[in-house]
Amino acid sequence: MNLRDADFLHRLADIADAETLPRYRTDLIVDTKPKEGYTFDPVTEADREAEIAIRAAIGDRFPDHAILGEEMGLTGSGRYRWVLDPVDGTRPFICGLPVWGTLIGLTIDGRAELGMMSQPFTRERFWADHDGAWTQRDGVRQRLATRDVGSLDRAILHTTSPDHFGDELATGFKRLSAAVRMTRYGGECYAMAMIAAGRIDLAFEPSLQPYDIVALIPIIERAGGVVTRLDGARAEEGGPVLVAATPALHSAALRELREAIS
Amino acid sequence: MNLRDADFLHRLADIADAETLPRYRTDLIVDTKPKEGYTFDPVTEADREAEIAIRAAIGDRFPDHAILGEEMGLTGSGRYRWVLDPVDGTRPFICGLPVWGTLIGLTIDGRAELGMMSQPFTRERFWADHDGAWTQRDGVRQRLATRDVGSLDRAILHTTSPDHFGDELATGFKRLSAAVRMTRYGGECYAMAMIAAGRIDLAFEPSLQPYDIVALIPIIERAGGVVTRLDGARAEEGGPVLVAATPALHSAALRELREAIS
Repeated sequence: MNLRDADFLHRLADIADAETLPRYRTDLIVDTKPKEGYTFDPVTEADREAEIAIRAAIGDRFPDHAILGEEMGLTGSGRYRWVLDPVDGTRPFICGLPVWGTLIGLTIDGRAELGMMSQPFTRERFWADHDGAWTQRDGVRQRLATRDVGSLDRAILHTTSPDHFGDELATGFKRLSAAVRMTRYGGECYAMAMIAAGRIDLAFEPSLQPYDIVALIPIIERAGGVVTRLDGARAEEGGPVLVAATPALHSAALRELREAIS
Repeated sequence: MNLRDADFLHRLADIADAETLPRYRTDLIVDTKPKEGYTFDPVTEADREAEIAIRAAIGDRFPDHAILGEEMGLTGSGRYRWVLDPVDGTRPFICGLPVWGTLIGLTIDGRAELGMMSQPFTRERFWADHDGAWTQRDGVRQRLATRDVGSLDRAILHTTSPDHFGDELATGFKRLSAAVRMTRYGGECYAMAMIAAGRIDLAFEPSLQPYDIVALIPIIERAGGVVTRLDGARAEEGGPVLVAATPALHSAALRELREAIS
């Protein structure tokens, strides 16, 4: 496949949007399933139908590619693996808050190479191909670039919820939060896109799955940012994940987070 | 003035949108001013310019009305008082998260009678006139109505930040949070609009100013909701404010919050 060409990513996003947007702010059939550390994890019809539709489109074009999806797990094997979260941010989706998105990523030999985040209510796309990281709305395409605020005390930090931390990570996050200019909650994948767009400087999420982060990795990296696990390793497998606008900010934030743990 | 006519509210929102939207996600001149309980309170050019423009439009049409604005305080006196927050949610505005809004309310003899919340990036309006509460996007107007989930354990609760509570309110909020189905952060006035739209059931904000809540009161009340201070009094003067989708939910939530305080 031609990795310089983002057309297929946009086609997949179009297919997902057709399943998600018509169900946004309508009455949903909401199942719940237990998940460690979460007291409430809705699985919507939008989530399921979008994953089915994206899987079908990938299967048509690349029948030999593996697919890992939030709803249906891993199918297939090999060097090429698509990683899907049809509705990242099911909670804001249910609450009517437009910070959810469809995440579509591709790993090659375990490394995230392509990524798409689609937010159909605001009509925005954020994606990464081999030419860089991009956003588009109303037909206007712009290159994404993180910003450099220079030091932690000038940085804006994001995490989705203060309720998802265990004790050690809570202490580390409090240290980091005390060191930055401002801490912001409740942004999910949209806040990650805003790091790539140079509006937020740091994000820490204590417990991500691969499908929560793979699509975002190339978007943030090619915009100039850094994405790792708390242990400094690459984040394709999920875990506690730190995202930073610059390498220097990433190092400084990692120090604050680890201080409380060691 | 004809309170059945929302045209003037929309005209004021148009005027505000023209000042706020072009400055959203551009580089801003950000001043900071100290405010109790907040470590960071940005005042943007958008905030100032929108308030100047709204004040001018009100002054032309109703020169004898008082105006209370976040940026410029109270001018004038009398039965009719406009209450303005040109950018409610300066933090999400700065972070690029589309949950901020322009709030324009009118009190008559101290009671909130008209309200407008405009979110120009998502192209949404939420407002209340004497015919009810409404929302509009892409030319489609719908009546707002809160939902009735029946009991606290089925309710979604919102607050903007867990960092804004004092000790007593933090304990009360934790009790309430433990009693509901899900707690959501970071939605500002947009989350209040989602209560009116039947997507969220409860919101508690520990320390609101009049301009943070006046415009939202008639929108929520005419959609079927309840807005009071923690002491049960009307919320036009601000303070710790509880918003609920139904009277029963309001009573139940108030009990949880007060339990920790008395």
